[in-house]
Amino acid sequence: MHPERTESGCDEIARSARIWLIRRGVTAEDIAELVYVLQKDYIPGLTRDECLENVEHALSKRDVQNAVLTGIQLDELAEQGKLTQPLLAMIREDDRLYGCDEALATAIVGVYGTIGLTNYGYIDRLKPGILRKLDDRRDGETHTFLDDIVGALAAAAASRIAHRRAAVRV
Amino acid sequence: MHPERTESGCDEIARSARIWLIRRGVTAEDIAELVYVLQKDYIPGLTRDECLENVEHALSKRDVQNAVLTGIQLDELAEQGKLTQPLLAMIREDDRLYGCDEALATAIVGVYGTIGLTNYGYIDRLKPGILRKLDDRRDGETHTFLDDIVGALAAAAASRIAHRRAAVRV
Amino acid sequence: MHPERTESGCDEIARSARIWLIRRGVTAEDIAELVYVLQKDYIPGLTRDECLENVEHALSKRDVQNAVLTGIQLDELAEQGKLTQPLLAMIREDDRLYGCDEALATAIVGVYGTIGLTNYGYIDRLKPGILRKLDDRRDGETHTFLDDIVGALAAAAASRIAHRRAAVRV
Amino acid sequence: MHPERTESGCDEIARSARIWLIRRGVTAEDIAELVYVLQKDYIPGLTRDECLENVEHALSKRDVQNAVLTGIQLDELAEQGKLTQPLLAMIREDDRLYGCDEALATAIVGVYGTIGLTNYGYIDRLKPGILRKLDDRRDGETHTFLDDIVGALAAAAASRIAHRRAAVRV
Repeated sequence: MHPERTESGCDEIARSARIWLIRRGVTAEDIAELVYVLQKDYIPGLTRDECLENVEHALSKRDVQNAVLTGIQLDELAEQGKLTQPLLAMIREDDRLYGCDEALATAIVGVYGTIGLTNYGYIDRLKPGILRKLDDRRDGETHTFLDDIVGALAAAAASRIAHRRAAVRV
Repeated sequence: MHPERTESGCDEIARSARIWLIRRGVTAEDIAELVYVLQKDYIPGLTRDECLENVEHALSKRDVQNAVLTGIQLDELAEQGKLTQPLLAMIREDDRLYGCDEALATAIVGVYGTIGLTNYGYIDRLKPGILRKLDDRRDGETHTFLDDIVGALAAAAASRIAHRRAAVRV
Repeated sequence: MHPERTESGCDEIARSARIWLIRRGVTAEDIAELVYVLQKDYIPGLTRDECLENVEHALSKRDVQNAVLTGIQLDELAEQGKLTQPLLAMIREDDRLYGCDEALATAIVGVYGTIGLTNYGYIDRLKPGILRKLDDRRDGETHTFLDDIVGALAAAAASRIAHRRAAVRV
Repeated sequence: MHPERTESGCDEIARSARIWLIRRGVTAEDIAELVYVLQKDYIPGLTRDECLENVEHALSKRDVQNAVLTGIQLDELAEQGKLTQPLLAMIREDDRLYGCDEALATAIVGVYGTIGLTNYGYIDRLKPGILRKLDDRRDGETHTFLDDIVGALAAAAASRIAHRRAAVRV
């Protein structure tokens, strides 16, 4: 009936989200580094491995994978000039009044609850590490969705660390 | 510097959102009819004109226009087979676990506050009027984003009516 | 330093959320019944036990517990006349323009992603089962937050069922 | 029938939101200063008057007023020890895993669309001006909700400035 369904199985979607991120120049380690920057002053003994483990967990969530695929698809189509005007210009220029990237990012941040929202906003503006690289894009590159996605992923992973540390402590 | 910027002016974006909706078979009157269905039992003397006026106001909001353009673009590219797998299959089949359409719809509902959320969910499931037509799609048509966008627009307009009626009453 | 911290441990919070719900007349089984009503036509072989198991899982989430405690506290203080005007009147009368109950409910629905949003809106308006009972309140009772919390819990549990069924299927 | 309704008219609610903010030590000018800090590097010729005018507009929105009243009420009841445990401890200590303050703040930020989300997160963490004062609270003071509300109000006003400047420019 739905021959495509076999192609969009859970494993395929999970694998694609990772591959697409790497294709756009972002590794799980890059995101883990953002988590470390966000949390190192608050969580004693935090290691990069713990950050990476929580980024991996966030990447295993279907809502996160959906947003990663949708956002990167829009960035790539904008880059290739394959979107219709005036949407093309808004995404290519990262128009200040275009907020669909924030809307998708919110879905990512939310997978571990509302406490991640402020971390997402903070890192999005501070732009450390990979976010700086995405921002200093060469001509022709579009990362309007990707930078919000990456910041949201780091914020989500940070939330999960906070939740798990609390569960262990008490 | 940014020659595209002239093209993505506010008027152009507003106009495009309306044209794209009509291209996909949805008029402001169709959405006003949904608002009427949602609210007629609660608001004495509600007219279709008042519903239409509030749909028009919602359509004048930039956040609404952004979501309309982005969602319709994704629907059309899915229809044309121009998205990459596995995203293509998810959007084409309106996969139950794909929630980016709901994420964009939330941005629309939110423009007049949180009270519209339940109306959006209700109408999305009841599917009266134009929503039924979008759901009974012929083979090859994709309205994964559009049905959520239309329901969210109706819910937003209903919220505005509630706010304005209250302001007049007191 | 923080002697209270021992009191607000994770177990205590989880336990309190359940006790407060029961104190307000809502059992996990009542919520499971709502999940069953929402999903029985879509999920072949769905049992009430499976619904209950997923309600229990939603109740184990800290974000859910926080919203349950905060919402019930506000309902109870409104009932007892211990809130300040004009907030007291807004919560007591379930003012149509008061949307903080929807804002808290959104945090509950979101714990398993955005796909639950429409279920929440639908059940909130349909008001089957326990939601009907909460709505037909006797004089003096206030369930402004509780009915949204209960509907959101049912919608969240329904989302988890959808996610888990898909994971098994593929 | 509803004698309280006359008391909770729109004017009364708007007035109360302002009075309650002032009672907690926050003026519209304090919030305008945060807007100025957020936006001065991006908007040429921005004045504090323009910031204040946009804070005033945000304060005229019913969703904002609802969140202000609800959040301040919870802070004050926590301060007075009039909430029930374990909720009392969570709000008093601004528990890291308590996110209902972020959930209410999101409703405020959202009144001018999703573009304000990152500003809210950024200012919440940077804590300039009045946010620093609220954070350096003396023993016994609770501002768990207020600091998020104030940051969200500043972010919302900043969004409105961006929207209006764009409308004028094009």
